[in-house]
Amino acid sequence: MSILVVGSVAFDDVASPSGSVKNILGGAGTYFALAASYFTQVRVVAVVGEDFGAEQEQVFRKRGIDIRGIEHAAGKTFRWGGTYSDNLNEAKTDFTDLNVFERFQPRIPKEYEDTEFLFLANIQPTLQADVRRKMHAARLTGCDTMNYWIQGTPKELAETLKLVDVLLINDTETKMLAHESNLPRAAHNVLAMGPRALVIKHGEYGATIFFREGAFGIGRHPFRAPTLPIEEVKDPTGAGDSFAGGFMGYIASQEELNREVLKRALFYGGVMGSFAVERFGTERLQGLTREEIDERFQVFRELTHLE
Amino acid sequence: MSILVVGSVAFDDVASPSGSVKNILGGAGTYFALAASYFTQVRVVAVVGEDFGAEQEQVFRKRGIDIRGIEHAAGKTFRWGGTYSDNLNEAKTDFTDLNVFERFQPRIPKEYEDTEFLFLANIQPTLQADVRRKMHAARLTGCDTMNYWIQGTPKELAETLKLVDVLLINDTETKMLAHESNLPRAAHNVLAMGPRALVIKHGEYGATIFFREGAFGIGRHPFRAPTLPIEEVKDPTGAGDSFAGGFMGYIASQEELNREVLKRALFYGGVMGSFAVERFGTERLQGLTREEIDERFQVFRELTHLE
Repeated sequence: MSILVVGSVAFDDVASPSGSVKNILGGAGTYFALAASYFTQVRVVAVVGEDFGAEQEQVFRKRGIDIRGIEHAAGKTFRWGGTYSDNLNEAKTDFTDLNVFERFQPRIPKEYEDTEFLFLANIQPTLQADVRRKMHAARLTGCDTMNYWIQGTPKELAETLKLVDVLLINDTETKMLAHESNLPRAAHNVLAMGPRALVIKHGEYGATIFFREGAFGIGRHPFRAPTLPIEEVKDPTGAGDSFAGGFMGYIASQEELNREVLKRALFYGGVMGSFAVERFGTERLQGLTREEIDERFQVFRELTHLE
Repeated sequence: MSILVVGSVAFDDVASPSGSVKNILGGAGTYFALAASYFTQVRVVAVVGEDFGAEQEQVFRKRGIDIRGIEHAAGKTFRWGGTYSDNLNEAKTDFTDLNVFERFQPRIPKEYEDTEFLFLANIQPTLQADVRRKMHAARLTGCDTMNYWIQGTPKELAETLKLVDVLLINDTETKMLAHESNLPRAAHNVLAMGPRALVIKHGEYGATIFFREGAFGIGRHPFRAPTLPIEEVKDPTGAGDSFAGGFMGYIASQEELNREVLKRALFYGGVMGSFAVERFGTERLQGLTREEIDERFQVFRELTHLE
């Protein structure tokens, strides 16, 4: 099955205790697409500027990603700069130049209309809802968001949440969205807003998936996947989007959607996130093999597996 | 096998968003002893004052805990008061009255000298080392500590760490002790100080055990156990000590010490910690059954188990 991601493609400047890079290919849509490409056919809807050329296209093409939905607009591509200090969990944003992204109006190519799996990366909630409404063939829609939309456009976000199946956010975002500091109670509040499942990403501690009663016919017991403790985190940028790519990509690659598939998807999410942070930018995600991925999946499994 | 715990027995005042209690039985030694008592014979070395009477003794006796090592001194028992706000991960200490605990000099009853498992709860490191040196029959020694000793008596703590097998501390304490902000690197630094294994407690995210190369003949791959997301955390006091009680108590109950036993011990630690926080003080730990414990163990296992 193929999966469509709608989100940002960007150029990033990143500094971390391990070094710094400038003008590297980034953006939620990019990280998601690369991570998902190891599992299934990926299609991208995004906007880029005149500074996005053959070199960048090649990164997608090498992974067999369909970029007919990447619109080229006059002006510059979205640029972001961030610095990570010793606490790698949070970036200090140095600058955000939206550029062509500011007027992004996602256009779905005709050839993409039959896509059955959809991921709405972190963009303005009304745009997310518009895309969802256009994708009539979508069987499963995943969605990301952030504190900026949770606090700034809560009504628009509430509308979007009614249209998605799985929301993927972190602990802080969950508590903020639910107005509740206890995580499992917050999860239930969020599920009451619309999604059938909620994936809460805990950073270095893994992720938990919570289900609405009866969702996917599998009951509401949560499931948790660990992540590997990583000694060398070079660049945490894109870890969450890579997680989403592994999670959604694996689901899209499976015939059936059952509890075991969702559990494995959560592990594959962690695996792709753990690869992403090992190098700056998307470097690690560009050159993986499915064997390496499955090997790490086994390491993650062993990390918590009781006989 | 029996296990000896050396640590505090106290009276606590606790306030949390769920309510407040005064003068309830607490202390690291108490939580540890009660949690471990569901797995093995427990012996306690502690000091109490004249306000500790038959009612408190009965709490230990009902669980078959040997309290011949609890010394009765003139004066009052150690008292602690703390308040938890919405962030239940950290208590604001309202008062600490050490009372008889200030001059605590652990005395090991002759009948305890053959104890093969030892847990040094969070007390002054030199006292921990003294006890360890006296316990010639100890096959496995667990140890706790806190930021107060890590920062205040680093040399004394370093000596103690050379004498223990397993150190059980949280993320912040690990990073502080190792002078290193990356958790797995910090873990390796701590293991180089002496312990063969390090259990890092992640609060609501579970715990990870790191091993020194070749420790217990099981290689150095870490293992991680989750905890159950709990909707109603009434009182987090003693969660870490209850974790240690479940972890060490399960180990002491097993014939052999191998990787599978240590993995299960980590799960049992999480199980006992999760019970402890469901009610104020030690209430939940006083009235459990082994069946309830094993049932929750299965729930924890299911939480991360892939077919």
